[in-house]
Amino acid sequence: MSRILYDLAAADEHIRFSPFCWRAKLALMHKELAFETRPWRYCEKDRIAFSGQGKVPVLVDGDTTVSDSWAIAIHLEQTYPDNPLFPGGSAQAQTLFFKLWCEQTLHPLVLRTVMKDLFAVLHPDDQPYWRRTREERFGCTLEEAALSAEEGVSRINQALEPVRPVLSRHDFLDGEAPGFADHLLLAVFQWAGAVSSLSLVAADDVVHRWFGTMRARYGL
Amino acid sequence: MSRILYDLAAADEHIRFSPFCWRAKLALMHKELAFETRPWRYCEKDRIAFSGQGKVPVLVDGDTTVSDSWAIAIHLEQTYPDNPLFPGGSAQAQTLFFKLWCEQTLHPLVLRTVMKDLFAVLHPDDQPYWRRTREERFGCTLEEAALSAEEGVSRINQALEPVRPVLSRHDFLDGEAPGFADHLLLAVFQWAGAVSSLSLVAADDVVHRWFGTMRARYGL
Repeated sequence: MSRILYDLAAADEHIRFSPFCWRAKLALMHKELAFETRPWRYCEKDRIAFSGQGKVPVLVDGDTTVSDSWAIAIHLEQTYPDNPLFPGGSAQAQTLFFKLWCEQTLHPLVLRTVMKDLFAVLHPDDQPYWRRTREERFGCTLEEAALSAEEGVSRINQALEPVRPVLSRHDFLDGEAPGFADHLLLAVFQWAGAVSSLSLVAADDVVHRWFGTMRARYGL
Repeated sequence: MSRILYDLAAADEHIRFSPFCWRAKLALMHKELAFETRPWRYCEKDRIAFSGQGKVPVLVDGDTTVSDSWAIAIHLEQTYPDNPLFPGGSAQAQTLFFKLWCEQTLHPLVLRTVMKDLFAVLHPDDQPYWRRTREERFGCTLEEAALSAEEGVSRINQALEPVRPVLSRHDFLDGEAPGFADHLLLAVFQWAGAVSSLSLVAADDVVHRWFGTMRARYGL
């Protein structure tokens, strides 16, 4: 059975930066499911029109097409129960909270911190679309929304505060084994790391320890 | 077996406002464990000196004394496994994240919104201590830190954003049954409601629906 993931790519198709696509890839890796990625760019809406919408990730899993990283995680959990993404009764609801926290707190800060680097690696055909949609979102130019590396890293570290006591007491955000909450956070670091060489957390930070463990776990 | 909870009280001992004490009470109610509360005020450090520290909640559960709301929840879960507070493998780690989010995001906003009301109901012997410690924390006077009702409610509602999609898809923050994550959030509302008549969320808000369900569940 073939499993295809449409995965956002930069001008260099080996640069895969979307945190939403990283969530899907990490969940597939966690389930130990083979898959291929197809590089995709914002201007190629027609190539994913079959999914009924215009954003990636799109997973084609045999006869089933699923878009949206959360829907993909739910689909994988229901279809392949081994190696749970949501271990335990309350985990799906709590992980949904964590997803929203990531998107509302961390994502804007990381985006503003790596913005210039990210824009620079985009396919030239994607740059006008990306500039226009992000400037609408921020209500100002990309250059105005961008944070200096120093301010961005400082604010990201402040935003990560509630994560640290969890990772001080537990190996993973999901407890004794990684789950989709861990994928949600790792996806943010993979996104930043795909386009920027900036170190987001200090070497003696418990988040750094977790980051190393997670990357080793998934061979990244 | 006796079970005693030292519970922060206002000048009127029937006003019990501490969100940390509410967490402990809600967890005890959830476990369907009988307990008595002892009203306690900040200036009575000597009355809880036996616990080895100076803050409430302090639970005396037979021969065991536990302070700190998180430690009390863990103690109750280990000692009385029925009616789980952390349902499922990953819930304790994820609930710890939610606890820290509540404390770092919601607590300061709620405190600044109900500050004048809260200060007014404190025991006169507690007021100088409370003013001094809170002014140190905020780095300004209580009056300067206080938010207008309008601004406070607006900012609380904004902070509650990541909670709403969870409560739109699930009955409780812990999924299909309430757990300690629900207690953590309800404790914040109980705190505000003990000292202020302000409506924090609109009647058509999904958080309001959840709030009514939770209060009915615990007979509040």
